[in-house]
Amino acid sequence: MDRQQGGGRTITLPGGPRVLSWASVVGKKEGQGPLADFFDLVGEEDSFGEKSWEKAETAMQKKALSLALDKAGLAPGAVDCLLAGDLLNQCIGSAFAAREHGRPFLGLYGACSTMAESLALAALLTGGGFLERAAAVTSSHFCSAERQYRTPLEYGGQRPPTAQWTVTGAGCALVGREGEGPRIIHVTLGRVVDLGVKDANNMGAAMAPAAADTILSHLADTGRKPSDYDLIVTGDLGSLGLELLGELLREAGLDLPNLADCGALIYDRQGQDVHCGGSGCGCSAAVLCGFLLGGLAGGKWRRLLFCGTGALLSPTSTQQGESIPGICHAVALEGGKT
Amino acid sequence: MDRQQGGGRTITLPGGPRVLSWASVVGKKEGQGPLADFFDLVGEEDSFGEKSWEKAETAMQKKALSLALDKAGLAPGAVDCLLAGDLLNQCIGSAFAAREHGRPFLGLYGACSTMAESLALAALLTGGGFLERAAAVTSSHFCSAERQYRTPLEYGGQRPPTAQWTVTGAGCALVGREGEGPRIIHVTLGRVVDLGVKDANNMGAAMAPAAADTILSHLADTGRKPSDYDLIVTGDLGSLGLELLGELLREAGLDLPNLADCGALIYDRQGQDVHCGGSGCGCSAAVLCGFLLGGLAGGKWRRLLFCGTGALLSPTSTQQGESIPGICHAVALEGGKT
Repeated sequence: MDRQQGGGRTITLPGGPRVLSWASVVGKKEGQGPLADFFDLVGEEDSFGEKSWEKAETAMQKKALSLALDKAGLAPGAVDCLLAGDLLNQCIGSAFAAREHGRPFLGLYGACSTMAESLALAALLTGGGFLERAAAVTSSHFCSAERQYRTPLEYGGQRPPTAQWTVTGAGCALVGREGEGPRIIHVTLGRVVDLGVKDANNMGAAMAPAAADTILSHLADTGRKPSDYDLIVTGDLGSLGLELLGELLREAGLDLPNLADCGALIYDRQGQDVHCGGSGCGCSAAVLCGFLLGGLAGGKWRRLLFCGTGALLSPTSTQQGESIPGICHAVALEGGKT
Repeated sequence: MDRQQGGGRTITLPGGPRVLSWASVVGKKEGQGPLADFFDLVGEEDSFGEKSWEKAETAMQKKALSLALDKAGLAPGAVDCLLAGDLLNQCIGSAFAAREHGRPFLGLYGACSTMAESLALAALLTGGGFLERAAAVTSSHFCSAERQYRTPLEYGGQRPPTAQWTVTGAGCALVGREGEGPRIIHVTLGRVVDLGVKDANNMGAAMAPAAADTILSHLADTGRKPSDYDLIVTGDLGSLGLELLGELLREAGLDLPNLADCGALIYDRQGQDVHCGGSGCGCSAAVLCGFLLGGLAGGKWRRLLFCGTGALLSPTSTQQGESIPGICHAVALEGGKT
C-alpha cells in the first residue's frame, strides 16, 4: 500500500490517472501574447459580460469547465468533484462557479500554486479509486487582484521593476481514473519555505527557494535526473524568480537547461510592459491547460514536471511586517501514448 | 477499486483510517462555556502572547498541532502532510503555522466546513495509502473575524438576534493509516446549495439547506437509518439553523432526535450573550477535537456523523448583492474499539 517513494514527499501513482481534457480562458492582454494560439477562449472584454471583476472570474471558471467537459464529451454530472481555488478573499471566484455546477466541491487555497495543488489532489483522489473523474480549476483576474492586493486600477499606482502582472485567465483539467490523455505519474507535495523576503512586489524571489526545494526533493525521491524531463516548468516565478531558481539549483550542483516558467512564457516581456512577467493562479492554469498539456498530448514533449509556485502572503501579513512564505507543489506528467 | 457507494457522493473507506490523537485550543470565553472541561488549552488571553489577532490564530494552530503530536507520542516529522485552513483572507493563519512545521502543506478553504474538509481529505489520503499520517487543522478567532467580515471591535457595532459568535479556537486531528483510535468509515462530499438567503448575519439559515442535502445524501448512499448514528452533529448552524435543519429533514420525511450542532453546544446561549451560538472554522474544530472524539473513544457514542457546514460568502460578494452559497461535508466515525 505504501506509494510514497524514498520516505520523501513524492507519491507515485502506479495507475497513472489521465488528464482526459483541458481548457483555458483568458483576457485580452493574454490573447495578444506569444501563447495566443494555445488558449481556447480569449475574452473580447475582461469583464466577460459581468458587472464586477469578481463575477468575471466566476464566469471564466465556469467557461473553462464547460469547454473541458465539451472536449471530453462529458456531461457536468460526470465530474464527481470540483477541486478549485483562486486568489480572492474567501475564494469566492470558485465557490460561485461551483454553485452552478451542482456537484461536490472542495475549495483549495495555495495562492498561485493552486493549479498544481488541485491537479495533484485530483490525481490522488482518482488514482486512489475514490472518484471516477475530478476537475481541477483555478483562476485569477488582473483587475480583482489589483484592487484586493494593491489599489483599485483608477488609482494608477506605479509598478516597480520586480513586479509581475496578474494574469486574467482560468484553466480546467479533467482528470479520470481511466481513459485517454497524458498520465499523471508522480506528485511531490510542497512545504512552506520562507527565506525572509518581505517585498510583496518581488514574489518571484520569495517563491524561488520553495521551487528549488520541491524540484530537488522530487529528483531525490524518484532517483531521476533533470534530463529525464523534457521540460521542468514552474508556475509563475517570472523572469527574475526563474533566474534566482537557476542560481539556487546550480548552487546545489544541478544545471537545468530544460527549465521554463509559465509567468515568463505567457507575455512578451518587452512588448507588453509586464515587467517580470505573469503571475496569479490563472497564469500556470492557462499555460498548463493549453500549451503544456497540448504539447504533451501532441508529442512535443514526452515527460514534463509541472511545478506550481505560490506566495502565501496577504495584504494583512505584509502590513504586519511578515515575510512571504513560499510553496511549490510538483506534478509529473507523461505523454498520452506512452 | 470503486469505493463510491450507490453512485452518490459518499466514499467508503474499508481500511478505516484512524484518528490517532486530537487536541483543541480555545479562548477565554469558550473556556467559560459548557464544554470547558473538554478543551486541552484555554488561553489566558485571546492574544495568545502575540501582537496581532492574526498571529494569535497561527499560535493556536501551532499549539493544537503540537499538543496532538505529544498525545500520540510523535515527532513533527512523523506527519506527512498538514491539511489546514482558516477564515482569514488568503488563509494566513494556516500558512504561517505551516511555515513552522516544515512538512508538506495543502491549504484548504471551506469556510466553517474546513475542519470536515480537512478531516475528509486526511482520511482519503491516508486511506488511499498515499500518506502514513496527516494532520487536519483549522482555526478561527473572534477578533480577526470581526474586523475582517464586519467592523473592528472598537466600533462596537450592534449584533442582530440571528447573529452567531465566531469561536476563538483551533482543533487538530491526527489521522493515520493504521494505529489506535476512532475509525473514519465514510466521507460524503458536499456540494454548494444556495436557496437565496442574503443576510450575512443569518448564516445558520444559509447553511441549513446544505446540511440537509448532505445528510440525506449520506443516508441514501449508505442505506443507513438515522438511528444507526448515536449522534449526527452539524458544524455551526447555531440554534436557529439547527431548528431550520430539523424542519427541512422533517419535510423530507425524517425525524432526527439525535441531531446536535457544535455552534449550539459550545456556549451557554443565555448566560454568554452569543445570540444564536458559535460559528467559525474553530467552532466545529474545537468541539470535534475534544468533546466529540473524546466521547467516541471513551464509549459515550458508538457511531457519529460529523457534518461541517460552511457559508462560502465574502464581504465583497455580499456588497455585490450575492446570496450566500452553503456547503456541508460529512465524515462518519466509529468508536476506537469496534
